[in-house]
Amino acid sequence: MKIVLDVMGQDAKTVVPVKGALDALLETDVQIVLAGREEEIMAALKECGHDTVPERMEILDAPEVVTMNDYSTVLKTKRNSSMCKGLDYVAAGNADAIVSAGSTGALLTAATLIVKRIRGVRRAALGTVLPNDNGGVLLMDCGANAECTAEYLLQFAYMGYFYMRNVMKRDNPRVALLNIGAEDAKGRPEHKEAFELLSKANEEGFINFVGNIEGRDIFTADCDVIIADGFSGNIALKTVEGTASYFAKMMKSMFYKNIFSKISALIVKGGINSLKKKMDYAEVGGSPFIGLSKPVIKAHGASNSKAFKNAIKQAYYFASSSAISDISANVENMKVANEGKTE
Amino acid sequence: MKIVLDVMGQDAKTVVPVKGALDALLETDVQIVLAGREEEIMAALKECGHDTVPERMEILDAPEVVTMNDYSTVLKTKRNSSMCKGLDYVAAGNADAIVSAGSTGALLTAATLIVKRIRGVRRAALGTVLPNDNGGVLLMDCGANAECTAEYLLQFAYMGYFYMRNVMKRDNPRVALLNIGAEDAKGRPEHKEAFELLSKANEEGFINFVGNIEGRDIFTADCDVIIADGFSGNIALKTVEGTASYFAKMMKSMFYKNIFSKISALIVKGGINSLKKKMDYAEVGGSPFIGLSKPVIKAHGASNSKAFKNAIKQAYYFASSSAISDISANVENMKVANEGKTE
Repeated sequence: MKIVLDVMGQDAKTVVPVKGALDALLETDVQIVLAGREEEIMAALKECGHDTVPERMEILDAPEVVTMNDYSTVLKTKRNSSMCKGLDYVAAGNADAIVSAGSTGALLTAATLIVKRIRGVRRAALGTVLPNDNGGVLLMDCGANAECTAEYLLQFAYMGYFYMRNVMKRDNPRVALLNIGAEDAKGRPEHKEAFELLSKANEEGFINFVGNIEGRDIFTADCDVIIADGFSGNIALKTVEGTASYFAKMMKSMFYKNIFSKISALIVKGGINSLKKKMDYAEVGGSPFIGLSKPVIKAHGASNSKAFKNAIKQAYYFASSSAISDISANVENMKVANEGKTE
Repeated sequence: MKIVLDVMGQDAKTVVPVKGALDALLETDVQIVLAGREEEIMAALKECGHDTVPERMEILDAPEVVTMNDYSTVLKTKRNSSMCKGLDYVAAGNADAIVSAGSTGALLTAATLIVKRIRGVRRAALGTVLPNDNGGVLLMDCGANAECTAEYLLQFAYMGYFYMRNVMKRDNPRVALLNIGAEDAKGRPEHKEAFELLSKANEEGFINFVGNIEGRDIFTADCDVIIADGFSGNIALKTVEGTASYFAKMMKSMFYKNIFSKISALIVKGGINSLKKKMDYAEVGGSPFIGLSKPVIKAHGASNSKAFKNAIKQAYYFASSSAISDISANVENMKVANEGKTE
C-alpha cells in the first residue's frame, strides 16, 4: 500500500507534513511518497533526525506549488506542482491514494481531471466526519457542488453508504437527508425528488434511508451518513465550526476570570480535554473526496503533524477497503432515467 | 399601542402566554388583546390571581386552534382560530401587531393573506436575532422561502437593514450575504447575482453591504444583518441550535462527573449562567416576519412566560418604529428590472 503525501499545500512549513508521514510509518506498514521540492523535503527530514530518505519512504520531486489562486487554472499553470504530479502518480497506478492540504477547489478540479470519477458517477462529493456520541457521522457534500440535482443526491447517498460501511466498518449505515423539516415533502424541488428516490432505493434494499433530518439533529440523529447539497452542506459544516469555537471561547473566558475559576478549570481538566479532543479535526484526519476512482483525501490547510498522520491512516483505510469497487458495482442502481441528457 | 397575543398556539398551557402578557403590562404601557378561547383565558387569568380582565387587557374570543397540520389550509379550515381572528383584528386596524407561537408555516400563510405584504415586496422573510459579542446579529430568511431569486435576497437586505436600524437602533447596519466562500463570485447563480445587486445598492448609498461571509463567521463577523436564502438560512439557524445544545450537554456531563467537578461548577456558576443567558431564546423573544404591512412575531413553540413577555416587547418596539414605512418608501430601489414578470 503506497500513499502520496503532498507536502507543499498546507499553511505550515514542509516539516509539519513530513513529521506526520514519519509518524504514520511507525504506526502502519504503509509506504509514503512525499511530493514536493526535493531540497525542502531533505531539509525537513534532516530536521526530524533523518540524513537520508528512510525506508518505506520516497520523494517525488515537484518544483511548483499550488496556491489558493490556482482554483480553476491549476492544470494549465501548475502542471509540475506537487499536487498535480502526485495525482499523476496515483492515476498511473504507481500509488494507491493521495493526501493534500492544498486548495480544495484546485484539488477537486485537478483530481477530477487526472484521477477521474468512477465511471457513471456524475459528481464527486467532499465528505467530513463530524463527531457525535456514536463515533462520528459522515456529512457529504460539504461544498464540492453548490448546485445539485436529485440524482446527485441519490448518488451521494449510495457513495456515503459504501464509505461508512467499508471504511468506517458500520453495519448497514443509516442515511439521512439534510432538509428544512423532518416531514417527507420538505425543501427545494431537488430535495423533494431526492426524498422519493431515496425512499425507493430503501424499499428495494439498496441503501438504508431513514428520512429527512434538520440542522439541529446533526449531532443527535440516529444516522451514519447525512446527505446534503454542497451549498447547505458547506453552510452546516462551517456553522458547526463557528458555533463550537464561539462556545469554546466563551468557556475559556469563563474559566480564565479569576484564580478560583482557574482552579475549577484544573478540576475538570479531564473533561475539558475530552471535549477538546472530540472537537479536534486533527483526530479525524481529513475529508475524503468520494466518487473518484482512487482515494483523494483533503487535509485541513491548518493541519498539524498529528492531523497529517491521521489523514494518511484514513487514506490507507480507504484504499484498503472495497468502497470504490462497491460504488462502481452499484452505479447502475444510482441512475435516474430522465437525467443526465446534458452530460 | 395595542398588541394581539395568540394564546393557543404554543406547546404549553394557556396560562404561560397569559402570565407573559401580565408581565409585559407591568414593564410597558402596551395594551394587550388575548386571542383564544375565552373560558380558558379567564381560567388562566384566575390562576395568575385575576378574577376579572385587568386594565389595558382585553379578550378576543376564538373557538378554534391552529395545529401543525394546518400548514397550508389554515384559512379554509380554521378561519375562527385565535391565529386568524388575531390577524383579522390587526389587518382591520384594531391593533398594531401580533405575536403567535403557532405553526410557522400556518402563520406565514395566514399573515401573508390577511395582513398582506408591503406593496412591492415579493416575499416576507423570517428573521432571528442570534447572540454575538455586539448585541446580536439578524439572520434572515430563516426558512420562509426555500427558493429565492437574487431579487428576493436584495429585498431581504433592505428589509434587514431597516429592521436593525429602526427597531434595534443600529447605526448604518452592516449587511452580509451568507455564502460558501468569502470571495466575490461564490455560491449558486442567485447568490452571485445577489452579490452584484448588493454591491450596486451599496455603491449607490442605499444599504451598507460588507460582502460574503461563511457559516463559521456567523458569530464573529463584523455585521448586523446576515442575508440568506430560506433553505440555507434555516440549516444555519438550526445547526447553531444543535451544536450549542450538544456542547451544553457535553459541558453538563463534564461538571456532573463527581463531587469535585460539581464544586468547580459552583465556582464558575456566574459564568455558566451568563453563557446560558446568551444562548437562551427566551431572552430574544421571537422571530419577526419582515416584509408584511404590520409586525407579525413568531414566538418559539416551546416559549415560557419570559419568552412571551419579550416577544410582546419586541412587537411593541417593531410597531413603534418606522421600519415598515421606511421599507415601503424604498421599495422602488429594491426592484430588479427583468424580474417579477411571473408575479
